[in-house]
Amino acid sequence: MADIQKLEQLAKLIRYWSLVSTTEAGSGHPSSSLSATDLMTGLLFGGAFRSDVDRPKHPNNDRLIFSKGHASPLFYALWLADGKVTEKEMMTLRKFGSPLEGHPTPAFAYTEAATGSLGQGLSIGVGMALNAKYLDKLPYRTYVLLGDSEMSEGSQWEAMEIAAYYRLNNLVGIIDVNRLGQRGETMYGHDLDVYRNRAAAFGWETIVIDGHHFPQILTAYDQAARVRDRPVMIIAKTEKGKGVSFIEGKNGWHGKALKKDELARALTELGPVDKDVRGEIKRPDDLSPASRTSAKAGPIAYALDKPVSTRHAYGTALDRLAVQYPDIIVLDAEVSNSTFAEIFKKGHPDRFFEMYIAEQNMVGAGLGLSLRGKVPFVSSFAAFLTRAFDQIRMSQYSAANVKFCGSHAGVSIGVDGSSQMGLEDIALFRTILDGVVLYPSDAVAAERLVEEAAKHRGIVYLRTTREDTPVIYRNDEVFRIGGSKVLRRNRRDVVTVVAAGITLHEALAAYEELKADGIPIGVIDLYSVKPLDVATLIEAARATGTIITVEDHYAEGGIGEAVRSALAGTGARVHSLAVRKLPRSGKPRELLDYEEISRTAIMRKVRELL
Amino acid sequence: MADIQKLEQLAKLIRYWSLVSTTEAGSGHPSSSLSATDLMTGLLFGGAFRSDVDRPKHPNNDRLIFSKGHASPLFYALWLADGKVTEKEMMTLRKFGSPLEGHPTPAFAYTEAATGSLGQGLSIGVGMALNAKYLDKLPYRTYVLLGDSEMSEGSQWEAMEIAAYYRLNNLVGIIDVNRLGQRGETMYGHDLDVYRNRAAAFGWETIVIDGHHFPQILTAYDQAARVRDRPVMIIAKTEKGKGVSFIEGKNGWHGKALKKDELARALTELGPVDKDVRGEIKRPDDLSPASRTSAKAGPIAYALDKPVSTRHAYGTALDRLAVQYPDIIVLDAEVSNSTFAEIFKKGHPDRFFEMYIAEQNMVGAGLGLSLRGKVPFVSSFAAFLTRAFDQIRMSQYSAANVKFCGSHAGVSIGVDGSSQMGLEDIALFRTILDGVVLYPSDAVAAERLVEEAAKHRGIVYLRTTREDTPVIYRNDEVFRIGGSKVLRRNRRDVVTVVAAGITLHEALAAYEELKADGIPIGVIDLYSVKPLDVATLIEAARATGTIITVEDHYAEGGIGEAVRSALAGTGARVHSLAVRKLPRSGKPRELLDYEEISRTAIMRKVRELL
Repeated sequence: MADIQKLEQLAKLIRYWSLVSTTEAGSGHPSSSLSATDLMTGLLFGGAFRSDVDRPKHPNNDRLIFSKGHASPLFYALWLADGKVTEKEMMTLRKFGSPLEGHPTPAFAYTEAATGSLGQGLSIGVGMALNAKYLDKLPYRTYVLLGDSEMSEGSQWEAMEIAAYYRLNNLVGIIDVNRLGQRGETMYGHDLDVYRNRAAAFGWETIVIDGHHFPQILTAYDQAARVRDRPVMIIAKTEKGKGVSFIEGKNGWHGKALKKDELARALTELGPVDKDVRGEIKRPDDLSPASRTSAKAGPIAYALDKPVSTRHAYGTALDRLAVQYPDIIVLDAEVSNSTFAEIFKKGHPDRFFEMYIAEQNMVGAGLGLSLRGKVPFVSSFAAFLTRAFDQIRMSQYSAANVKFCGSHAGVSIGVDGSSQMGLEDIALFRTILDGVVLYPSDAVAAERLVEEAAKHRGIVYLRTTREDTPVIYRNDEVFRIGGSKVLRRNRRDVVTVVAAGITLHEALAAYEELKADGIPIGVIDLYSVKPLDVATLIEAARATGTIITVEDHYAEGGIGEAVRSALAGTGARVHSLAVRKLPRSGKPRELLDYEEISRTAIMRKVRELL
Repeated sequence: MADIQKLEQLAKLIRYWSLVSTTEAGSGHPSSSLSATDLMTGLLFGGAFRSDVDRPKHPNNDRLIFSKGHASPLFYALWLADGKVTEKEMMTLRKFGSPLEGHPTPAFAYTEAATGSLGQGLSIGVGMALNAKYLDKLPYRTYVLLGDSEMSEGSQWEAMEIAAYYRLNNLVGIIDVNRLGQRGETMYGHDLDVYRNRAAAFGWETIVIDGHHFPQILTAYDQAARVRDRPVMIIAKTEKGKGVSFIEGKNGWHGKALKKDELARALTELGPVDKDVRGEIKRPDDLSPASRTSAKAGPIAYALDKPVSTRHAYGTALDRLAVQYPDIIVLDAEVSNSTFAEIFKKGHPDRFFEMYIAEQNMVGAGLGLSLRGKVPFVSSFAAFLTRAFDQIRMSQYSAANVKFCGSHAGVSIGVDGSSQMGLEDIALFRTILDGVVLYPSDAVAAERLVEEAAKHRGIVYLRTTREDTPVIYRNDEVFRIGGSKVLRRNRRDVVTVVAAGITLHEALAAYEELKADGIPIGVIDLYSVKPLDVATLIEAARATGTIITVEDHYAEGGIGEAVRSALAGTGARVHSLAVRKLPRSGKPRELLDYEEISRTAIMRKVRELL
């Protein structure tokens, strides 16, 4: 057993810095830090946690995720107590340019994942634990510090069920049950049985402790490490503001730094602090991750004009590319027979994880896998990825390398109706800073863009279509992020139609019919919606003066607005055909017509403009 | 006890039509309908359910929500069995123009809420049950049919915890545990104990039954009606495809209509069907909802120039308007002391529901309240409303009348960092068909726009700011949805700056400084981001030729793109200042400067353009 007195000294040091740094910053969450101080001090310096602190990215390190990211003063102070943050750095908390941001981000070397939107850390931990157990096959453990308030987020229970399903005995959650949320008591206060019963019902081993009692804390971590068949939840009774009498257990102190005089009182209460005491974290073994060989992927061989859905090509591409990109891992939310992720699953069952109908956890787990070096492809219906948009948004702050695929885009899915139609996915994914949005129109483009997505470092969104569409590209056609294809161009073109995905085929059909009538139009395949091939668009606008955009997506934030934005100031006229009426059930063609994004609508618009 | 033989006849009729209508449609979910047929037949025609079927909106009717919306053939066939859908209508299932859409929508008179994105029905039920118990004070009960697969959605457990917290004994869930999801077995197959233990751990009364055994089914509803202190979950073991041997309990039949020959075999197995049998649903009592008096709201009295945050004005406005709009109900996700919904809560605790950190369920419950005639205002940080975007998206298909308020918009929140910053909320809410997006810049505008939101029927999003901003409008200033304010205009203006919220104050400051240098600029407050005041924008573009948009939001889908889209083709030059760098912690002013959306950035851009 570790030296309890030393742990108490360290805890005091950490409390000291949590208080002092937040008062210096003038904001922050000291009370939420104090409640978890003993739990985290015991974890890092009590012998359970193994990390080569000189190599924070070392694959054998245990991972520690602060799901309650607002306890960041504690997080940084832990690393001060390990000697990795100086006192001076600690005093830069929350200041512009400091790596010690208000909530942990990768600007700080020991942050495993950015947190601050509650209820996300456990899912990220699931991804890291899946990686350890099934992919890298390394003995590292993943610890996630959870707040009691955030246990009300449904995403937590998604992570709970999936962690148990995959028997992640290398995942340890620690609930800091400090009873108080932001504006008052949580639903359950200090009723620890509620948390225990729920965690147990979700298949977890549970350990209930006093979160301020080091012997219990150390025993809990020791027990947790010995569970072999399931994840472990340590449920710890704590006091918010522990150690400072006038905030301990008191409501009204959430997210409040102490004023200078309050700090002085608090420090007096804390008593003498050994500023020089430093803890030591155990080093892990130096094992290599399970290796995977790589070989060149085979060619593609689609027959021109043959109808194949881009969603099918997505699955085929993943399966084909798997050998060349051994880090590709595929996750799907119980619709793999619709997204066609199942093609990959059949070929590479050891690299596929069924995440069931729980999109938020799927995205968080994908992020966790990405942060351990994998290249996850995460798929569901485009409509249902909206379910996890907070997780998607947050993943950019962790510098994620995750690829999302949303199938069943647009009204062209037909009879299933509006609930199943992805009509805002382009708008959502376009907001991701440095994100990429790709929208292939045929199987060749889909295959090529899946590979571009795999090669690109960052967040990529691929939009696929339910319906079969004819192959229009040769197998050796090259696609690149930020590119487009000018498919029809003639110096007499009266207008250029810009489309992508299913509407590209409508545009090509309109081209043929109008051509027969002696009306030439240009057609551009805008397969890279972000970044946009602005140069080609401007050239087209100059050539014909008028652009018609056509998309199977709501008007806002989609292709039309992207193009209009790019062409603002050029004087080009832009007409945008998009989904503008409440969609309903019907045949794909009926709905394309109804929404005025079909070949008929394009021809009507072109004739109007003549 | 009801006539079991009659129920069996009705169930046979309903199975018949679930099969026949989907084969006619060529798609749909007969197997998922067959598993729940006995459960639903027993509910509607066994005496538990009370509804005046001639008045589907009657406030005393029991509500029935098909959370597993893909069982829509069953849903419609139930109403055929009640005589409200003709055989001919039943055969229009999934056809363009038919009210019998692929998933239930309000096009069908008996649909309480549109479903089809799984895991949402229970939250909607929570809203309806809250209304019955605490607002209308009516004895109607709300029944929600749930699929076993969809129990993996975290949103379900949010609904579970909140329903128990509010002791909603008028809410009955029915899990149709048919063992099979879309692509195979669920995580738990027919292990009913998993569902029972979890529901019990979440505080629900549980009743486990054979879902094909009418006496058990009827007893379960009877028991459920007698529970007084908690919601009830009926967990029913069923067989997917029940009644047709070659699909019953077999994988591979999800979402598949029978082919003609398969249908013939199935109908032979089903045996003779009495096509004329019709069930009877009990009528409810005719009680009046608890009435609320109404009186004119008091005036507002803000002092010009005094700094007040728009989020504070939001809370003040709700509190002030409560008396005039008795249907206003406020929901908040455990941040009411930040969104300032707490001001309303203090004045009107009986019309405020604390929904804890569970945004998805909060939005679903808001929808449920709205569908029972209330005007819910639903608030959290703008960043965290993204958590519930699938629910927000779906609410438009239920013709929701819900008002969302997202506080802490943009980088100007400062030190808390990127995770807390709403930077994509405008883009998200702009995609809502017929949605309204409002973004007040001062307390007067916030007060007025809250009232406009309350008066407007439909989905409205209000974006509020953390920081205090000076009052710039007189108390009698009028604001309207679709309007804007030209705050500075001079015939010599070199450029017009279009801003809203916090950046409007940056624009006004830039105006003063540039004016001192003899450079006149126009300034427009674009408080209505959707719909947009296009006429005013075009007029400004004509007058100055150049527009600068400035927004505390990512560039995509925000104010810049909205304005650029509106002005495409006018030849106006538009320069857009928006958040384009990874945001971090810092003081509000440092971050506005860093992201180049501050007064300094505006002045720099104006000078560049001279």
